[in-house]
Amino acid sequence: MLNIAILGFGNIGSGVADVFIENEDIITKKMGDKVNIKYILDIIEIKNHLLSDRYVNDFDIILNDPDISLIVETIGGCTWAYKYTKAALEKGINVVTPNKELVATHGAELLKIAAQKNIRYFFEASVGGGIPIIRPIYNCLAANKINQITAILNGTTNFILTKMSNENWSFDQALKMAQENGFAEPDPSDDINGKDSCRKICILSSLAFGKQLPPEKVHTEGIKNITLEDIKNAELLGYKIKLIAKSGQIQDSFYVIVAPMFVPRSSPLYNIDDVFNGIVVTGNAIGDVMFYGRGAGKLPTASAVAADVMDALAKNTKNITWDLSDGDYVSDYKSQPVKYYIRTNDKFFITDELFEYELEKQAKKLNILSKIRII
Amino acid sequence: MLNIAILGFGNIGSGVADVFIENEDIITKKMGDKVNIKYILDIIEIKNHLLSDRYVNDFDIILNDPDISLIVETIGGCTWAYKYTKAALEKGINVVTPNKELVATHGAELLKIAAQKNIRYFFEASVGGGIPIIRPIYNCLAANKINQITAILNGTTNFILTKMSNENWSFDQALKMAQENGFAEPDPSDDINGKDSCRKICILSSLAFGKQLPPEKVHTEGIKNITLEDIKNAELLGYKIKLIAKSGQIQDSFYVIVAPMFVPRSSPLYNIDDVFNGIVVTGNAIGDVMFYGRGAGKLPTASAVAADVMDALAKNTKNITWDLSDGDYVSDYKSQPVKYYIRTNDKFFITDELFEYELEKQAKKLNILSKIRII
Repeated sequence: MLNIAILGFGNIGSGVADVFIENEDIITKKMGDKVNIKYILDIIEIKNHLLSDRYVNDFDIILNDPDISLIVETIGGCTWAYKYTKAALEKGINVVTPNKELVATHGAELLKIAAQKNIRYFFEASVGGGIPIIRPIYNCLAANKINQITAILNGTTNFILTKMSNENWSFDQALKMAQENGFAEPDPSDDINGKDSCRKICILSSLAFGKQLPPEKVHTEGIKNITLEDIKNAELLGYKIKLIAKSGQIQDSFYVIVAPMFVPRSSPLYNIDDVFNGIVVTGNAIGDVMFYGRGAGKLPTASAVAADVMDALAKNTKNITWDLSDGDYVSDYKSQPVKYYIRTNDKFFITDELFEYELEKQAKKLNILSKIRII
Repeated sequence: MLNIAILGFGNIGSGVADVFIENEDIITKKMGDKVNIKYILDIIEIKNHLLSDRYVNDFDIILNDPDISLIVETIGGCTWAYKYTKAALEKGINVVTPNKELVATHGAELLKIAAQKNIRYFFEASVGGGIPIIRPIYNCLAANKINQITAILNGTTNFILTKMSNENWSFDQALKMAQENGFAEPDPSDDINGKDSCRKICILSSLAFGKQLPPEKVHTEGIKNITLEDIKNAELLGYKIKLIAKSGQIQDSFYVIVAPMFVPRSSPLYNIDDVFNGIVVTGNAIGDVMFYGRGAGKLPTASAVAADVMDALAKNTKNITWDLSDGDYVSDYKSQPVKYYIRTNDKFFITDELFEYELEKQAKKLNILSKIRII
């Protein structure tokens, strides 16, 4: 019997329990032993659930039970999640999480503790929900220099932009529909303002480039200012507007940006619509590979967490590490010339490649109403 | 110093050497030690190469050198490759290969020896070239029941079908262009007749379903009979014709088929053109995920082999296994009803779902000139 505990029994936490119950036969067969959810910690008591009797409200019960070899942290955020994760790792208990905020912010520190204790801190579900991306980058592409990552990492904003484009809905209409369909949180600010995408590209970049990339170092724009007019103009020019997270290496520095961008038909990201995510990784030997799927959702995400649990318990895969860093290697996002879509009072067009400061100089003269980067 | 040997110094074998030379800095950093290619075995002497001095023509030199902890098998086929791989594994030497024919045919046996010896037999590059797919299915999707795999696994045929569709080229013209561009072998029969796709879907299915799937159990059709007329009709109906490899689970049996199929616009495979591969894996928790990239090519494939080498030497990931089987669980490919595209003398149309025997009954009456499954 392999005993684990789940911290936080919300959408994903309860989904993890569902996956272990639903797929018990294949999981037990692959593990050669049963994975048993011994405790579930939450601030609200769990009632009317098959596992109600596993409920505890005191983290110390879990921490001090020598039977517990792994904790699933599905609390979210950086407060309690950080405290509990650190305590567990320091005690030599493996931790698995989909918590992107925590990994993006404190990943290097937590991974270092895990390495010192020779245990696992896995977070496959923190980016792309159930889409395999962390392990493929870290293991399968290990012999490549990763030159660039270009991705659609947020399903809510992609749904909104798709509906604006296909159904002529306004931003507010599309957001309302996303919320009604459960694709957006009651408070969707972190999706809309790009913060969610930012945390995810920070994790992928830290992984690919080997240094912690602090989210506050990343220039991040949301999609709130995208108008239906811009979306229609994009179509006329042969593009779609997507919220793009992009990072790459130029000599010894890195550029990172999250912003709405014009994506041409020739890009594999052009066809990634609705709540889907697409992540294009460019390596010096492999060229482009893309990973595609639903970037969120209870069961997809929970199944990635469950696979991490299996992997950590079986000691199948070694720990991931990256170095602590204050992000001083991140170059100014304006240091690269790009093409822009420009909309003024009376026209719209795509510029040649130019630096943002060149555009800023002309902004007043041209009376620019909207400017969006080409990917 | 981690000493390895390469068997077979053709396109991929020499590519593996290139990757270890070109990316030596990142590989050494990740491994904490230098990977040294101590021997290269080939039937033709290697001259004018940075590593010419590593050339040997006697496998026993490699087998009997206790310094060698890993062999890269890039010979191909099932004769010498099988003999050398088995000998190496039995001697406790790790083996890494892109050899799809060998893994599809003798995978279960070779994996069993590796497991007994507690060494690794890895083959990430055998399917999809450099696209990460083996490890993602085996590890990242481990908590899922895999219900279905639907894939474009052969770049040569996809290039031909794309060019027929986009450029109105005949099959022969497109094949010639593929050969001139190095996308097709001088003898492309195994690509054209579907055998290459068949071996690859056998590997993915063995991995996903846990039992060896012998290639000879798979109904395999090539693309030779696809006419320009069918391709144009497909377009008119909103489809593209792709060579599809498909396998899935129905209760206790599996269906597997390789055949040209009509792919609708709504499928993520619709946009996989030219030499690209796309692999859609459907799990009971994850839903659909797709892996996309160049399915062949010297450096992409070599970089996947190199990553396997790193993984095996670092003992990062445990061995993969599946059970021996004669494939008696494979159901008749005709046992499932599907929709068909039908072309007769004077018309073309798409049928309702029906069993192939129903169609065969009507074949003479209708004077069917072409029939192609809808995916």
